[in-house]
Amino acid sequence: MIDLRSDTVTKPTPAMLEAMMKAEVGDDVFGEDPTVKALEVKTAEIFGMEAGIFCPSGTMTNQIAIKILTLPQQEVICDKRAHIYNYEGGGIAFNSLCSVKLVDGPRGILSIDDIEAAINSDDIHYPQTALVALENTVNKGGGAYYTLGQIKSIHQLCKQHGLPLHLDGARVFNALTASHDTPADYGKYFDTISVCLSKGLGAPVGSVLVGSHDLIKKAKRVRKVFGGGMRQAGYLAAAGIYALDHHVKRLAEDHIRAKVLAEELQNKSFVKEVFPVDTNIIIFSLQHMDTKRFLNALKEHDILAIPFGKDEIRMVTHLAFDDDSLEKVVDALKKMDRKPV
Amino acid sequence: MIDLRSDTVTKPTPAMLEAMMKAEVGDDVFGEDPTVKALEVKTAEIFGMEAGIFCPSGTMTNQIAIKILTLPQQEVICDKRAHIYNYEGGGIAFNSLCSVKLVDGPRGILSIDDIEAAINSDDIHYPQTALVALENTVNKGGGAYYTLGQIKSIHQLCKQHGLPLHLDGARVFNALTASHDTPADYGKYFDTISVCLSKGLGAPVGSVLVGSHDLIKKAKRVRKVFGGGMRQAGYLAAAGIYALDHHVKRLAEDHIRAKVLAEELQNKSFVKEVFPVDTNIIIFSLQHMDTKRFLNALKEHDILAIPFGKDEIRMVTHLAFDDDSLEKVVDALKKMDRKPV
Amino acid sequence: MIDLRSDTVTKPTPAMLEAMMKAEVGDDVFGEDPTVKALEVKTAEIFGMEAGIFCPSGTMTNQIAIKILTLPQQEVICDKRAHIYNYEGGGIAFNSLCSVKLVDGPRGILSIDDIEAAINSDDIHYPQTALVALENTVNKGGGAYYTLGQIKSIHQLCKQHGLPLHLDGARVFNALTASHDTPADYGKYFDTISVCLSKGLGAPVGSVLVGSHDLIKKAKRVRKVFGGGMRQAGYLAAAGIYALDHHVKRLAEDHIRAKVLAEELQNKSFVKEVFPVDTNIIIFSLQHMDTKRFLNALKEHDILAIPFGKDEIRMVTHLAFDDDSLEKVVDALKKMDRKPV
Amino acid sequence: MIDLRSDTVTKPTPAMLEAMMKAEVGDDVFGEDPTVKALEVKTAEIFGMEAGIFCPSGTMTNQIAIKILTLPQQEVICDKRAHIYNYEGGGIAFNSLCSVKLVDGPRGILSIDDIEAAINSDDIHYPQTALVALENTVNKGGGAYYTLGQIKSIHQLCKQHGLPLHLDGARVFNALTASHDTPADYGKYFDTISVCLSKGLGAPVGSVLVGSHDLIKKAKRVRKVFGGGMRQAGYLAAAGIYALDHHVKRLAEDHIRAKVLAEELQNKSFVKEVFPVDTNIIIFSLQHMDTKRFLNALKEHDILAIPFGKDEIRMVTHLAFDDDSLEKVVDALKKMDRKPV
Repeated sequence: MIDLRSDTVTKPTPAMLEAMMKAEVGDDVFGEDPTVKALEVKTAEIFGMEAGIFCPSGTMTNQIAIKILTLPQQEVICDKRAHIYNYEGGGIAFNSLCSVKLVDGPRGILSIDDIEAAINSDDIHYPQTALVALENTVNKGGGAYYTLGQIKSIHQLCKQHGLPLHLDGARVFNALTASHDTPADYGKYFDTISVCLSKGLGAPVGSVLVGSHDLIKKAKRVRKVFGGGMRQAGYLAAAGIYALDHHVKRLAEDHIRAKVLAEELQNKSFVKEVFPVDTNIIIFSLQHMDTKRFLNALKEHDILAIPFGKDEIRMVTHLAFDDDSLEKVVDALKKMDRKPV
Repeated sequence: MIDLRSDTVTKPTPAMLEAMMKAEVGDDVFGEDPTVKALEVKTAEIFGMEAGIFCPSGTMTNQIAIKILTLPQQEVICDKRAHIYNYEGGGIAFNSLCSVKLVDGPRGILSIDDIEAAINSDDIHYPQTALVALENTVNKGGGAYYTLGQIKSIHQLCKQHGLPLHLDGARVFNALTASHDTPADYGKYFDTISVCLSKGLGAPVGSVLVGSHDLIKKAKRVRKVFGGGMRQAGYLAAAGIYALDHHVKRLAEDHIRAKVLAEELQNKSFVKEVFPVDTNIIIFSLQHMDTKRFLNALKEHDILAIPFGKDEIRMVTHLAFDDDSLEKVVDALKKMDRKPV
Repeated sequence: MIDLRSDTVTKPTPAMLEAMMKAEVGDDVFGEDPTVKALEVKTAEIFGMEAGIFCPSGTMTNQIAIKILTLPQQEVICDKRAHIYNYEGGGIAFNSLCSVKLVDGPRGILSIDDIEAAINSDDIHYPQTALVALENTVNKGGGAYYTLGQIKSIHQLCKQHGLPLHLDGARVFNALTASHDTPADYGKYFDTISVCLSKGLGAPVGSVLVGSHDLIKKAKRVRKVFGGGMRQAGYLAAAGIYALDHHVKRLAEDHIRAKVLAEELQNKSFVKEVFPVDTNIIIFSLQHMDTKRFLNALKEHDILAIPFGKDEIRMVTHLAFDDDSLEKVVDALKKMDRKPV
Repeated sequence: MIDLRSDTVTKPTPAMLEAMMKAEVGDDVFGEDPTVKALEVKTAEIFGMEAGIFCPSGTMTNQIAIKILTLPQQEVICDKRAHIYNYEGGGIAFNSLCSVKLVDGPRGILSIDDIEAAINSDDIHYPQTALVALENTVNKGGGAYYTLGQIKSIHQLCKQHGLPLHLDGARVFNALTASHDTPADYGKYFDTISVCLSKGLGAPVGSVLVGSHDLIKKAKRVRKVFGGGMRQAGYLAAAGIYALDHHVKRLAEDHIRAKVLAEELQNKSFVKEVFPVDTNIIIFSLQHMDTKRFLNALKEHDILAIPFGKDEIRMVTHLAFDDDSLEKVVDALKKMDRKPV
């Protein structure tokens, strides 16, 4: 099976698995797992941040960040496509008791005008605006990414209004790869960054939230009450360290293969429109057939993709999708194009 | 001063005040205030509902309704103009830990297609859709109202999906006046209705939430924890009873005066557009001047209105705005039109 | 009926009612009710505080205070008899998401040792101690009160640990009357005081929370989201002003009558033990009969009291309980003593 | 180092590590990790339950159980020593918005009388009693355990009052080992059981919550919003399966060694009292020295224990504490006894 549903489906390579099994571990609830500590320090340093905290998922790092940067009865500004609003089980309201002000940026990329207009005036009828949260790359925006200039100006606007700025970095290394910026560039402009290890980076489990010492200290309390503190988690952390060391540079390949796929799709009879492809996500709309029929047809060629909204399909390239796989998918699309699907 | 900022600014008439003064009271926390009880029963009966609960504000009746009809981690469908989302301090998230799915209906009037598209599928990534909340008339929609046919079909859709239906009836009697429907018509289609006494009806304080015995029993627990239980509240309830008896029919006058005002505004040089006027709310946009200058100019004629968004003004007609006041406002607008404001 | 169930059952005197009906009112949601403002300023000044906020109940002022002085996941220290823990619908957890550390002080009076032992160390397993809340007088402690020395030393301990100190002043004027301290004394040692108007003071509805400008500004947001903002609430506020002006001094009478009642009860065959009486609350345990039979027997003499725990009865003296009423109750108790009840 | 601080400090044996390495994994967020599924099914079956859900910690399984069995504004009955109240970061209030009614059972073992007295009557002043939660064995109760008869009668009382019953089974297999009951016995009487894998069982990470299909379906939503959903978690689950297969029977050894330790401690000059030892936990109080000095003295012999309250010490036996380790500790205690510590 060639699985293009998500970059979360990858399994550890033999080398990553070896690193995991050799990991030195301890009880991280007592703060004694050296590998977890090493991953936290390493990730923080890469982003030029003071501290990090390892969590079981990107949803947890996002939800913790929102929690520590807001108070109940406040409001979070984010794009209407944001993962934190759409796919985290209603956590902004549930975990943080905060409202949302949803902005509609092109492909999920917010402008400073969007954000400024979304800030509530100081009136007790409105929840108090407390946080701006970006996603980079934007999953529902087809992998669109911010330029460093955009991020910097949003940071300045936030500072001016006393608002912290969080980054949902589920695919932050894809954004950095595409924009040729460095993690340390981001560290300057965000208060917290959720750095996911289990998507493009290929680790099996986990995400690291990075920020200041103070914020990460607060994060530890929230992780505890969510039940996210793990004991000998070094096995998972070792995979994260391996991923940071070996799987960042290769993301560029995923982007190239995504572009090739996008071009192939462009001229297919069953494709209505391929949305712009900037990183490792391809979203396209169908014509002359519905998503179910299309996905079944793909499946007959041992290929998996995922429906994305009513008439759209998402494909995501990743670690386990090599040139061989690409060729097979290109072939399959050609075959599907020839005969009525 | 002629105060057109809101229909909440009215003060009791002498007759209403006399009714208040003569009220028989008791400790309502012990369930012993006969006037409060009478108001609760009366309001419930008018709407054909089983029970009612008297609260200090429409925000409280709305927030209690949302709380008793949802669970944390669920989602409320409402229009993006909804009072419950915009003006209740972020209560959906704070009090009920629920997310919102914001629909954009014309003038805040939701269609069944809007609602159906807003219902989440059963997937743990999404909050579970739990409640549809309408507002009637729609404040930010310029006093637009639903037809009974629309309400009925929304009710049927909700029933089909197992979703309760709440009505924010801040101006429910304005809606009924305009649509010539009866309160009992509404009682058939909504699970809970928040019936405000302190807007067009002219009572000084309070709102009654009506619904089934079971729901109102649950509401009492929520009112308690919010601190909304009052002791000898019969003085306020007496005003509510008086308002229901004497101030409903006269709402038609408010609607006529609003239409007259709207027509007057239409041809003024400083008015860009007057939005449709169906009940007692007039919203219009300005040209050649900003809201601040316009409101100051009005104030010089002893008239108050309220800014509504960036370039818009809202006026609301009510009990204390009689034909005399209308004439004065019409005159003032003419004078303002003649000379550059 | 002579109603000794609570000091909340009193109805306004004719003079208070007249003050209510003459009140100048306005829309307090717009901040325009002069009588509400006057009550807030007056109460704050009496306690030497910067600001006040009028709310529909003492439960609301308590719950708002807890909310603005804590964050979710923190802990409140209070006596296990505290009204805020026992009788406010679970509001500490529901409204503030805070845990409780329950102390067992004699008659609900906390010592600094009790409090110090209840402060959690800085460990993420424990909720963070955030607030100490006293009640004065202590309802479930039979009206026991703190000396100013005790309050001062608790204040100092709290300051040392960076903990704010809240006073549930449901019966704060009873405490002040008994201790001969002044409201301004209390204002120095508490961050917030919930001053109830509808108990011993005899106003029909309401409570004022007093504190610093900053805290009361925060309180306004919480009152809004609870739905505690009222429109023309001046009618209720006028009663509060009248009560502060005319009903404070007379509390000493209530205390004297409570002592007389306690002495009478002491020698009755059906009374096992009368607990110490310091203010206007009398709690006693029964023997040879259960609470239900006793209350029924009392009722036959047109007297109401309230069960308080399994075998105990509470009586509360108040405004409407004069020497005449006292004589009648004393007579009734004698009659009940002579024949087997 | 001989680490007796907790049974959470154990590291996987080589055989367990091999099982982890060989685990077949998939994306569990898509429900495609076969090893996670196998662990969930296996644990549920062992306890005669319908379904299970794998979580990163026992705190998460407990907190999820409390969440799905309660509503906000309700109350949980548990012992004052309960882990869910004391050591889970204030989660009952934070995650579930529930109050607690704390019972003081001997060594944390609740009787039906304790529980019955703790159930609130149906009065809106009180939070509604919604859940009884037991812990077995009781950590802060020195490893005390319930008899099946006790559990059965508590279950019957709960059923009678319509209350669900949760078991914090952090050390459920220690309880079963000591009582000679079977997991299926427990499955009959509890609605949910939190089965910890990372304590006595020796797995590095994780806990399984077992219950009915309906409850576990609800649990998945809560795990999602906490961020507890993991991707390729099969590596951790494999350790859990191995632990269930190979590390249950050996718990009896831990209990024997704990008894030996307890007897040794009994006659030491620095030991004031050794509390009863029923399973793998030893708690004793010190005399003639404080906990800090004692722990330092132990540490000089390469032995770690943990302070437990002011003057008490806790030791926990486990997988990595064999007869050799026992001998060393016994020797060390003798040496410490001879010379003044």
